Amino acid sequence: MSISASSPSLADALAATAATVEGELDRLLGLTDGPERRLHEAMRYATLGGGKRLRPFLVMQSAVLFNVSPAAALRVACAVEMVHCYSLIHDDLPCMDDDDLRRGRPTCHKAFDEATALLAGDALLTRAFEVLVLPLTHPDPTVRCELVWELAHASGGQGMVGGQMVDLQAAALSMDVAAISRLQQMKTGRLFAFACEAGAILGKAAQQLRQALRGYSHDMGLAFQIADDLLDVEGDADEVGKRVGKDDAAGKATFVSLLGIERARAQAAMLVDQACNHLEPFGDKAELLREAARYVVARRR
Amino acid sequence: MSISASSPSLADALAATAATVEGELDRLLGLTDGPERRLHEAMRYATLGGGKRLRPFLVMQSAVLFNVSPAAALRVACAVEMVHCYSLIHDDLPCMDDDDLRRGRPTCHKAFDEATALLAGDALLTRAFEVLVLPLTHPDPTVRCELVWELAHASGGQGMVGGQMVDLQAAALSMDVAAISRLQQMKTGRLFAFACEAGAILGKAAQQLRQALRGYSHDMGLAFQIADDLLDVEGDADEVGKRVGKDDAAGKATFVSLLGIERARAQAAMLVDQACNHLEPFGDKAELLREAARYVVARRR
Repeated sequence: MSISASSPSLADALAATAATVEGELDRLLGLTDGPERRLHEAMRYATLGGGKRLRPFLVMQSAVLFNVSPAAALRVACAVEMVHCYSLIHDDLPCMDDDDLRRGRPTCHKAFDEATALLAGDALLTRAFEVLVLPLTHPDPTVRCELVWELAHASGGQGMVGGQMVDLQAAALSMDVAAISRLQQMKTGRLFAFACEAGAILGKAAQQLRQALRGYSHDMGLAFQIADDLLDVEGDADEVGKRVGKDDAAGKATFVSLLGIERARAQAAMLVDQACNHLEPFGDKAELLREAARYVVARRR
Repeated sequence: MSISASSPSLADALAATAATVEGELDRLLGLTDGPERRLHEAMRYATLGGGKRLRPFLVMQSAVLFNVSPAAALRVACAVEMVHCYSLIHDDLPCMDDDDLRRGRPTCHKAFDEATALLAGDALLTRAFEVLVLPLTHPDPTVRCELVWELAHASGGQGMVGGQMVDLQAAALSMDVAAISRLQQMKTGRLFAFACEAGAILGKAAQQLRQALRGYSHDMGLAFQIADDLLDVEGDADEVGKRVGKDDAAGKATFVSLLGIERARAQAAMLVDQACNHLEPFGDKAELLREAARYVVARRR
């Protein structure tokens, strides 16, 4: 896959992380010989072989700030990606967004079947907690408990899944920019925040530094979402790798429908600047995180 | 609801546990005011107001053996019940068993809709890990990590969800008693085993005693499944509270179709005796667990 990152160093770093994450996911998602093999094939199909691996990249880069062992960070990165991929499988199901295409390939329920896709999502979510909680992730069980708590909190009914519930009703609700910001914070922002804070948790960082990363992820996550809305309006399905024009067809308000293309673009740019400002305490060590924030609004898929 | 337990003391204990668990689940599954409220309503609908609460009962009774605080055990009991209820929601979906009736009420996707039911299951699974991992469950984070690991392992792709995958293909596979035993071990046995071992984990019990509980849960779980197969053949939908005759209609081999009613009944009785023998090290303290094993084959729903 080609990565259209805004700088050569970021493109290289994203590609390197993607390759490392791919290898570790491959190892963590093994196959079995029994009739349950089909489940594990579906889990691997939906997780391996694609994706920007942006959340894993954020985990790995936040870990760099606190000199955390890359092997430990890699496990957390894979857990976050499993949760992300499970959410995509369930989101694509006919009773949800009913999508046939994901990352330029048939969605999991198209490649397998609905029941298998449902279960593959369930098993990926469960596997993420298994990966986090083993001592390989961190020798201190308090840290592992904190990781489990934060990932669960970010992805459950108060976080990602709650956001999906709001999103399902979005067309019927009259949503303003504040309501959409809240929806996006829940649906995608909370998992971004976990990815960005993971390094601080692993490194037992001071609250103040963790707060700085939270600020970064908040602004970067919103910028990411505005960029997604812009891609949905301006993008080309072949390039984006999934169906576009969905929100408009569904009658959903988006940042773009509420602000217009120009103001949405300006808002995203402002958020990127703000996100980068949060990283000041980390100096040059955070340069790739700054690049990543610029990339999320410049990307074309 | 009426509990047709085989002894008055067990009936009282089951009813008391069910009431306590209901209260704690009610507290742990709060409502919110945002548009995600519908999700939390669905989670509560599928979890509160019914069910034998057999798994919670096993947690509470195994905790008694090791003098574990009932408040701690109650949180684990609720986590197990959340996982059980999530699995029922997803199992009942049209792409899985397509059931309209559960515990004598419309299934979650009938009472709400498919998308909401899907998400309610996802959020319940996630909530179970949140509940386990907080210090209220146990002051020692190593114990909490072990609980998370064991619950995830019992309910994921190697356990319950893997078993559901096998079950989906059961009609197409030629399954003998060994294959069905393995399927049932994965689909229901592993979660029973976690419930029975939870007290030992919370009480940091010796491996030998934990092993005894594992033996008990293994035999009791298989007896439970044979009884379920018998109810599917002999039961009445009104009494059982869900559709019966399903396995036969689906062309699936069961313990009953392979062994016949009489041998299946004898096998279940033998397993109950075996299960009770495993409890010898615990003396009188395990009397309610023995009663529970007898109850699972005598129950009529």
